[in-house]
Amino acid sequence: MRSQVLVIRAEIDARPEALGAVMSAVAAGGAEVVGVDVVGATKTTVVRDLTVQAGDEEAAVAVAEALKAMDGVKVLDVTDRVFQAHEGGKLTMRNRAALTSRDDLSMAYTPGVARVCMAIHHDFDKAWEFTIKGNSVMVVSDGSSVVGQGDLGPLASLPVCEALCMFMKELAGIDAFPLPIDAKGPAEISTHVERISSVFAGVHLADISAPACFDILTDLGARLEIPVFHGDQEGTAASLLAGLINGLKVTGKELRDARVVVCGLGPGGQATARLLVAAGVGEVLACDRRGAVHKDRADMDERLAWIAEHTNSEGLTGSVHELIRGADAFIGLSVPDLLSAADVATMAKDPIVFGLAMPNPELDPDTAGAAAVFGTGRPDLPNQINSTLAFPGIWRGAIDVRATRINDAMVMAAANAIASVVEQEGALSADYVVPSVFNKALVPAVANAVRVAAQASGVARIATVSA
Amino acid sequence: MRSQVLVIRAEIDARPEALGAVMSAVAAGGAEVVGVDVVGATKTTVVRDLTVQAGDEEAAVAVAEALKAMDGVKVLDVTDRVFQAHEGGKLTMRNRAALTSRDDLSMAYTPGVARVCMAIHHDFDKAWEFTIKGNSVMVVSDGSSVVGQGDLGPLASLPVCEALCMFMKELAGIDAFPLPIDAKGPAEISTHVERISSVFAGVHLADISAPACFDILTDLGARLEIPVFHGDQEGTAASLLAGLINGLKVTGKELRDARVVVCGLGPGGQATARLLVAAGVGEVLACDRRGAVHKDRADMDERLAWIAEHTNSEGLTGSVHELIRGADAFIGLSVPDLLSAADVATMAKDPIVFGLAMPNPELDPDTAGAAAVFGTGRPDLPNQINSTLAFPGIWRGAIDVRATRINDAMVMAAANAIASVVEQEGALSADYVVPSVFNKALVPAVANAVRVAAQASGVARIATVSA
Repeated sequence: MRSQVLVIRAEIDARPEALGAVMSAVAAGGAEVVGVDVVGATKTTVVRDLTVQAGDEEAAVAVAEALKAMDGVKVLDVTDRVFQAHEGGKLTMRNRAALTSRDDLSMAYTPGVARVCMAIHHDFDKAWEFTIKGNSVMVVSDGSSVVGQGDLGPLASLPVCEALCMFMKELAGIDAFPLPIDAKGPAEISTHVERISSVFAGVHLADISAPACFDILTDLGARLEIPVFHGDQEGTAASLLAGLINGLKVTGKELRDARVVVCGLGPGGQATARLLVAAGVGEVLACDRRGAVHKDRADMDERLAWIAEHTNSEGLTGSVHELIRGADAFIGLSVPDLLSAADVATMAKDPIVFGLAMPNPELDPDTAGAAAVFGTGRPDLPNQINSTLAFPGIWRGAIDVRATRINDAMVMAAANAIASVVEQEGALSADYVVPSVFNKALVPAVANAVRVAAQASGVARIATVSA
Repeated sequence: MRSQVLVIRAEIDARPEALGAVMSAVAAGGAEVVGVDVVGATKTTVVRDLTVQAGDEEAAVAVAEALKAMDGVKVLDVTDRVFQAHEGGKLTMRNRAALTSRDDLSMAYTPGVARVCMAIHHDFDKAWEFTIKGNSVMVVSDGSSVVGQGDLGPLASLPVCEALCMFMKELAGIDAFPLPIDAKGPAEISTHVERISSVFAGVHLADISAPACFDILTDLGARLEIPVFHGDQEGTAASLLAGLINGLKVTGKELRDARVVVCGLGPGGQATARLLVAAGVGEVLACDRRGAVHKDRADMDERLAWIAEHTNSEGLTGSVHELIRGADAFIGLSVPDLLSAADVATMAKDPIVFGLAMPNPELDPDTAGAAAVFGTGRPDLPNQINSTLAFPGIWRGAIDVRATRINDAMVMAAANAIASVVEQEGALSADYVVPSVFNKALVPAVANAVRVAAQASGVARIATVSA
């Protein structure tokens, strides 16, 4: 996967073979020219913008250097498109009301505003109606697990938090604000978040490492009267369950009969194992680098003990390679290239393999033919599964009914709704078990299902539309 | 001042005298019809939207009831324009970059975002460039002093915080987010603010009561590497100094010779007294409900002791009524109707009176003729003086140079710039000593002066344009 995108502006000899030589030089550097735009010309040269994708920064720099060294090529400018896309930040504020006259001022500010303040003072619920609270989510991170790169510090999590806010706005019309927090450990993080939570309709945790993320979700969730949601846990779990539902349909199997291995027990893996149990999957088998989770395993914390209690009814032990024998589906949230085609061959007929490890999945895409259904976290392959499928719609639904929490029923409703979008298009196939995040039907479907589930499970403050 | 604005939709008999009767009924209720729009008609009736201003909620309700009771009038709907202006909140988020394709996604989010996160991890200063931090301000309140109504709780401060954010956006292009904080006392507030401050370029305190606001400004300011600013202190002080500078020009006096009484020693009063001392005002006299501040006064905290040390060189004692004898200017941040015309008559020739008490100034506007220059905080009278004149431009300037703090030099530069806007228009007069907050020249002038002062005083992280 090529994460480095450069735009190289170069003045190249007008001879036909010159551009070919440039393309070859880029390819020789392991990069690819994905776009060419002519931006000017002289009698003997043409100025072109070459959009180049490279695997990493080093490769990109090497390509630019290679072009600079070529005869007949003059590199005029090198722009890093990724950094360019982040310049000035990715979010801005906008006023919903005019503020251009004394009349506007007397209503939005003094003296008029005093009456709104008093109304909220007398009835805090009025804040849902007359302030940004009615549509706002805090996206909070301590920076302890930034995009799989480890503890980079709160400020380094900001580009990710901003991206999550963008999704909320673009896909679900939610006003989310990024708040990196300089605190460590569940108690400290929860305290700070609690004290600044009043302006928000919900708290979205992002890129917080385990086990802190588990405790914050539970403890802070119990303390606040608004939902606390962890995209990397419940969002990932909902998206995987959606993929599994449709994957099983494609392969003609039932959820209640399915044998599913969940490998990797970080935030996403544990949440997925729990959700699969709640969804009634036939047999869930969980494992991590130490092997299978089973009742007699030593050194388990209460969360792993819960998983041991509710999965692996046969008490299997051993590594993932043993565990997946005969399994209908493998769900990986672990490390790249964990499985071989030979491993997949030991699974049940028409196996499903979802490998969400980054940058490469648990099963090499080149050998993915071994699986009947193959999904990853990568945008350049079919069946991209990640939390982005779930969380914008879940938040939209939760906020619409002013939910006090996001419970299992709502997350399961979201999973079913994600799956249903593909089915309703009549497009379900092995290469299309989850919709695109840009599918216009996705967020409305998820939001509606979540609203209904919230109301049915008694966590909705207000009633909206019925299903 | 009429803070209540209703829109009453009424079907009124088409007879010419019917509308007249309605107008009379509104006037009889002490309210005023400030707008009439025809929205429909039948053969015998006309449907009109009457925009009615009333003094308070009770009066407004009475007017609506009076109309409902009239023959030939059918009230169809009553809309409270103030609450309408706040519905759904006054702020929203907007994405600065597109997020509609997989290509957008791979740059704003994974995999591209990881490189931006790493860049910030290696150099935190990069956050100024590649995140919202470069243009964002936290507007924070504990709700302890909401629009002069006392401790209403954090959530009730939200409409005010949102309004301040609106000013920042509309007038200075700043992305400010409102954060009511559920904490009391300077230590607690400072701790929570500090931990969530990394995404912001500055902290704007709002509606926090004394003495907490003083300590937060000092202590938190010293802890953070971004400015901490209190609109009710420094913003108010800068605006008053601007008015004083121009008021003295109008009356042909010099700042260094002026004798100025500051009455009311809450956040705004103390900050004003300090700033006037720093600005070199001839003699500053401060007083509160206990009378003059002087060196021998008992029970002064260190802040009042500082003021006693630097003002009232003659050691005057007594009440405000004694203190203003012979004064060139009176600045009130105290209570309505404190002064009589007789008090003003004891002042020096051509006295300046700024009465910022709300809803009515220290000197009744009907007797304002006693002063040569009269200013208030009210939008319906000439010379409206409040912090809104100062803080958007001060923040614009501070952010532009990534200032580490907002110091006296910057606040004084802002005051001079506010004053200069009126002078440069050639419009200076007794009724026009400060510009409108909507004056297009205001924020650029203040911002430029603040940038220059920040650079000259060594608190600018980066250099921008020169004066």
